[in-house]
Amino acid sequence: MKLLYPTSLDLDIDSLKGFAPTLHPYDVKKPIPDDLIDAEILVAWTNSPDNLSDAAKRMKNLKWIQSLAAGPNDVLNAGFDAKSIKITTGSGLHDHTVAEHTLALLLNAARRFFEMRDYQLQGKWPAHLGGPQPDRPKGRFTTLRDARVLIWGFGNIAKSLVPSLRGLGAEVKGVARSTGVRNGVEVYNEDHLKDLLPETDALVMILPGSEGTKHVLNKERLGLLPNHAWVVNVGRGTTVDEEALADALEKGEIGGAALDVFEKEPLPEDSRFWKTPNTIVSPHAAGGRPQGSEILIADNLRKFLAGQELKNVI
Amino acid sequence: MKLLYPTSLDLDIDSLKGFAPTLHPYDVKKPIPDDLIDAEILVAWTNSPDNLSDAAKRMKNLKWIQSLAAGPNDVLNAGFDAKSIKITTGSGLHDHTVAEHTLALLLNAARRFFEMRDYQLQGKWPAHLGGPQPDRPKGRFTTLRDARVLIWGFGNIAKSLVPSLRGLGAEVKGVARSTGVRNGVEVYNEDHLKDLLPETDALVMILPGSEGTKHVLNKERLGLLPNHAWVVNVGRGTTVDEEALADALEKGEIGGAALDVFEKEPLPEDSRFWKTPNTIVSPHAAGGRPQGSEILIADNLRKFLAGQELKNVI
Ligand SMILES: NC(=O)c1ccc[n+]([C@@H]2O[C@H](COP(=O)([O-])OP(=O)(O)OC[C@H]3O[C@@H](n4cnc5c(N)ncnc54)[C@H](OP(=O)(O)O)[C@@H]3O)[C@@H](O)[C@H]2O)c1
Ligand SMILES: NC(=O)c1ccc[n+]([C@@H]2O[C@H](COP(=O)([O-])OP(=O)(O)OC[C@H]3O[C@@H](n4cnc5c(N)ncnc54)[C@H](OP(=O)(O)O)[C@@H]3O)[C@@H](O)[C@H]2O)c1
Repeated sequence: MKLLYPTSLDLDIDSLKGFAPTLHPYDVKKPIPDDLIDAEILVAWTNSPDNLSDAAKRMKNLKWIQSLAAGPNDVLNAGFDAKSIKITTGSGLHDHTVAEHTLALLLNAARRFFEMRDYQLQGKWPAHLGGPQPDRPKGRFTTLRDARVLIWGFGNIAKSLVPSLRGLGAEVKGVARSTGVRNGVEVYNEDHLKDLLPETDALVMILPGSEGTKHVLNKERLGLLPNHAWVVNVGRGTTVDEEALADALEKGEIGGAALDVFEKEPLPEDSRFWKTPNTIVSPHAAGGRPQGSEILIADNLRKFLAGQELKNVI
Repeated sequence: MKLLYPTSLDLDIDSLKGFAPTLHPYDVKKPIPDDLIDAEILVAWTNSPDNLSDAAKRMKNLKWIQSLAAGPNDVLNAGFDAKSIKITTGSGLHDHTVAEHTLALLLNAARRFFEMRDYQLQGKWPAHLGGPQPDRPKGRFTTLRDARVLIWGFGNIAKSLVPSLRGLGAEVKGVARSTGVRNGVEVYNEDHLKDLLPETDALVMILPGSEGTKHVLNKERLGLLPNHAWVVNVGRGTTVDEEALADALEKGEIGGAALDVFEKEPLPEDSRFWKTPNTIVSPHAAGGRPQGSEILIADNLRKFLAGQELKNVI
């Protein structure tokens, strides 16, 4: 039995030894070589579309694909036979990195580093952003202390973000598909959004891309946010109606937007977000570097060999 | 007995009632009015130099000045009689705000938002900063996770910053005037700098401005830092030899500098820091909004009236 692992990241292969399958490196940008085509297990990370669609056609023995991506849309769209092949995601491997980036986006927004940079490039001191300032003024998002942060998509990444937010004094609430307390945070279903959005200083979107999440942040819901509220999106660009968001930014109906994900990436040249006011464009940089992959692979490999339910099945 | 409080910030005066002195508001940018000139207690915040030097001459009954600034150099330089007048600082009132800004500067540096902004202003997607990336590559400062952060000036602000850094996975050490464990962090005296600096990914300076701290971060010590290390300064600009720092930045001998304080503020038009590579110029924006002033004033007022030792005496 063969397990193919990608050379597109540094894996500690030694820590995967001792299992029945033999372990073989492969190049994720080329077709799988003939001598590996009979493998049963494929670990995937940043594979090219050609590599995946070719593998879907030629790997007749394939039983299980372990993607290291949190949202492996590439693998799902490659044409693998869903009936005979299990697909598991890398959910959990990106919690820490995405949470850190989200915190960084929130602080960049509150402390207005993007605006400071514009002044710096002109050799000007932004006096209005420094020196004596009002402390936590109403109707502005200037700090996480006492800020009301609403996390929409309260999964693994959100849970990793919460301690940092609370440590800085934020009041955190969540939105997911069911209501209840999770990790000590009140989480509500979407029916409560009409009450939650008007009480929000920063809305953090960490939703997966799917039919059910398409354009869920629309004009109407943006309109429920206070004028000073920031929108941060680190989930998927498809969850936001981008035209409605750009309108809200231009009209000053929200405080700003810090965006790591977009409907089209790279962000097209003619996107309005390059120039909308109070907008931070981050190039899908939150995650992109799985941490702890070996533990997930070993865990799932043991379960796979024992014929048990895998972790992170799609 | 009269206590004068400044109208330059929002104080909850009700919470200061019940003590013997009568409470009187005053304008910090004008001379103290004649009917208040006999006051014994002055609370100071963002007073103009003229207000202070005038008060030093005319307030003959003055016994105690409670500044709300962490480093009240303005009050110290105004000519008050140090023999008859106690001066207490606002140390502790800025811990949270400065710690938050410091964390924000560190994350801005690690996640390179300043560089993303430059691309955004040109309508360009900085592909090299997003997508798949190496995880915690050696010889680069890309995340706080496992980053070695050295805090030089391990006082109140540092102690407030440590939980956030540790929460994100950083290894924190401190430097102060004596060696020992403080708040669970190993703190060393300056003799250890030669061993500590080469093992540092981010050096955070939170030193007060004084004779003893002048240019303590000099060419030699900058030379001990790894080439990828960032310098963050939120203490006082005088603690850094700015020419040596600008040289190190231009030669790529350090990773970058995120500076909230400078020898001259506003930063002069001809400062090299506007254009040195990997430099974040923040306009003394970390603090500037004391939090919990009323508690400190009430505490010290009670002790003052009881003839006891005050908190934060200079
Ligand atoms: N920017 C980046 O670099 C980056 C990196 C990694 C991941 N991501 C994105 O982040 C997403 C979240 O990752 P995660 O690991 O936190 O996922 P997760 O643990 O699966 O959490 C997803 C959350 O979204 C909620 N959700 C899903 N569909 C929903 C719907 N139709 N309506 C309302 N809530 C819905 C889920 O609700 P329930 O809990 O009620 O099921 C859950 O709380 C990923 O799918 C990926 O797209 C981005
Ligand atoms: N950027 C801003 O907006 C802003 C706002 C507020 C404050 N600040 C600055 O931050 C400074 C620190 O504030 P803080 O409240 O944390 O002060 P703090 O509690 O008094 O701590 C100062 C620290 O510096 C150390 N130190 C002082 N002189 C030293 C010397 N000569 N050599 C080595 N270490 C020395 C002290 O060492 P020991 O513990 O051994 O005495 C102490 O650890 C203030 O003085 C102010 O200048 C800046």
